[in-house]
Amino acid sequence: MRKVKIGVIGHGCRGYGLMDTMLLTDMYEFIVICDKYEDRVQDGIKQVYDKLGYEPKGTTNYREVLEDPEVEAVLISCNWELHIPFAIEAMNAGKAIALEVGGAYTVESCFELVEAWERTRVPFMFLENCCYNKDELLATAMAKKGMLGRIVYCSGSYAHDLRREVVEGKEKRHYRLENYLHRNCENYPTHELGPIAKILGINRGNRMVSLVSVASGSFGMQDYVNKRVEKGEYVNPDLVGADFAQGDVVNTIITCENGEQILLRLDTSLPRSYSREFIVHGTNGIYEQAYNSVFLEGDNEYWDPYDYAQKNLCNADKHKDLLPDFWRNITKEQIDAGHGGMDFFELVDFATRLVENKPMPIDVYDAAAWMVITPLSERSIKENGMPQQIPDFTKGAYKTRPRFDVTD
Amino acid sequence: MRKVKIGVIGHGCRGYGLMDTMLLTDMYEFIVICDKYEDRVQDGIKQVYDKLGYEPKGTTNYREVLEDPEVEAVLISCNWELHIPFAIEAMNAGKAIALEVGGAYTVESCFELVEAWERTRVPFMFLENCCYNKDELLATAMAKKGMLGRIVYCSGSYAHDLRREVVEGKEKRHYRLENYLHRNCENYPTHELGPIAKILGINRGNRMVSLVSVASGSFGMQDYVNKRVEKGEYVNPDLVGADFAQGDVVNTIITCENGEQILLRLDTSLPRSYSREFIVHGTNGIYEQAYNSVFLEGDNEYWDPYDYAQKNLCNADKHKDLLPDFWRNITKEQIDAGHGGMDFFELVDFATRLVENKPMPIDVYDAAAWMVITPLSERSIKENGMPQQIPDFTKGAYKTRPRFDVTD
Repeated sequence: MRKVKIGVIGHGCRGYGLMDTMLLTDMYEFIVICDKYEDRVQDGIKQVYDKLGYEPKGTTNYREVLEDPEVEAVLISCNWELHIPFAIEAMNAGKAIALEVGGAYTVESCFELVEAWERTRVPFMFLENCCYNKDELLATAMAKKGMLGRIVYCSGSYAHDLRREVVEGKEKRHYRLENYLHRNCENYPTHELGPIAKILGINRGNRMVSLVSVASGSFGMQDYVNKRVEKGEYVNPDLVGADFAQGDVVNTIITCENGEQILLRLDTSLPRSYSREFIVHGTNGIYEQAYNSVFLEGDNEYWDPYDYAQKNLCNADKHKDLLPDFWRNITKEQIDAGHGGMDFFELVDFATRLVENKPMPIDVYDAAAWMVITPLSERSIKENGMPQQIPDFTKGAYKTRPRFDVTD
Repeated sequence: MRKVKIGVIGHGCRGYGLMDTMLLTDMYEFIVICDKYEDRVQDGIKQVYDKLGYEPKGTTNYREVLEDPEVEAVLISCNWELHIPFAIEAMNAGKAIALEVGGAYTVESCFELVEAWERTRVPFMFLENCCYNKDELLATAMAKKGMLGRIVYCSGSYAHDLRREVVEGKEKRHYRLENYLHRNCENYPTHELGPIAKILGINRGNRMVSLVSVASGSFGMQDYVNKRVEKGEYVNPDLVGADFAQGDVVNTIITCENGEQILLRLDTSLPRSYSREFIVHGTNGIYEQAYNSVFLEGDNEYWDPYDYAQKNLCNADKHKDLLPDFWRNITKEQIDAGHGGMDFFELVDFATRLVENKPMPIDVYDAAAWMVITPLSERSIKENGMPQQIPDFTKGAYKTRPRFDVTD
């Protein structure tokens, strides 16, 4: 198979990680590396050289990537705010696009993204890696087989202590800092929502109709700043005593047209262990990622998942034959390639579909529907939890669009 | 210590269980047993006779209990709908009251309950047994010691598969059936909310300000009816094809005046294991009941509670010295006395405080604030998630009322 000639826009922490995984797949040829900062450009060039022995071009001007005739596809992994504008420009330039995840900043920008795609119809993939993750694909397979019955409720969290990353944002040139200082919203909805939307057939027979979103107060960041100051650790002086707008915990409840409910929780500025707390609950059972647990009709309702975990009896593993081949045959190298393997499969899938000219399983309608949760959540929080209507970016086409999943 | 001369109003499943625990405490003298159904009255009389060798009086008319001069206190454990009306009548009759939990039916009735108490000032205790439970008291003790820092977020679920109880409601004369047929709300908020409200100082320095509540569709009950019919099991013919109003999963987000957020989930009509999923999350750590886990500032954020459980490393047990004496010295008999011990301590506490003329730790303001979540949730659900203001039943007194917990 020929390699995908790619240009990379955005070589911060995530860009670096994605490139590392791409290098490992051996399915990409790197044409040009772009970042706002020259040192990052040089890092990217070196990253390719060290692995493949050639040096791609480098630039701090993203337009040079879009205008480069050698580039067939771009990876957009810059700050969240530029995801949609850059994607639209890349569409207009006729490039295929792999767009890293993040929430949108306005509802309108999501419409613009869809409109640009409908005009250009370039290959477009939204890089929601959790759609390729083992747990999520196991639950998806169980749901598709009907083992959980009619799915009624799904939930998930982005529960990840980001205090250090945010507070060191100025030094690390990380965009999350500005977000946490000035916005209050479900700022990172897609890790949980992606796999859930796939299970519920969002944009394919079903759609999200409305949401409410509520934020707790903001205490964690300032507490963390104070703790660092007390310990004599460096903190950017602007952050001492600063008001962080972002609430520590945001819950968002989404209602779907077919009666399902989705709960998303953002929980990123208090100390805790990482978890996505993915749950799929139907009339015949429940999958709970956190317990590695599958409870099916007829199981004893008084069993205790914690007790089961202690006894190594958690039963999701019993169903591992339902996993797609790539998860059953995963190698150690693939596991180590980024987030336990999911990044590898995602980037193999993008390259394969692009080269074979096949449709992408996470398309622009998915991207718009998932990213729009952020500005709608922001509005709901500002209005003390007022319900917000969620647009139908498919203009009614969702009613008849067939299911299409990452494993199809 | 003298015994509490009690009359029991409501001897269904819960009344029976509470009486069993009361009998075990040996702190109650049973004067009269009342239920709407004569056979239940006889059951209650026999229950006392078998254990204590005497027969209390029996009646199907609750007024006879309230008018009985021998009765000093009443246990109200009838159907939810009559909790507040009976409590008000009992107040007017000058009886001390132990009121079993359940949600209210109207906001107004909660005000009436408070007004009746303020007129009569009888000893009143809301029997939220989870306020006496081990896990909840461990988290409370940690929170009070400041180990979790400033508390920002608490959540809990009433996650209990009640399909059989509901669908057999006609035969079992259980009031939940009518509720599931005709109401759609957070119908049972207090198991989680009680301990959370205590931790957050609700009515004592803090108050709940507003809520949003959203229900999923109702699929589980009808699916269960159909499954029983298919298996040839008896189902009341009225329920075959019936519309159940109650959504399978209801999430309710409550905002507190001091910036904390509370999430409550009702999850009672799909197959699952029982859980209250109690979580207390602050600027210094998180307690997660489901994992028996305490994560504190400085712990490795990439530890996996499931992995810890498998290795028997979950660390809440490390903090068990913080538990009140009665939990550290619990006997097997007390554990077996109802819900793992909490019922025992609760009913010992009620009797002790009543006899010693001490204030009750779960008072009428707590009862009203916790019960009112149900009708407010019902209204929010009807209005597609519209925020609802939560009344302040203390009329501003919450600002200066001192903390008072079940262990004080």
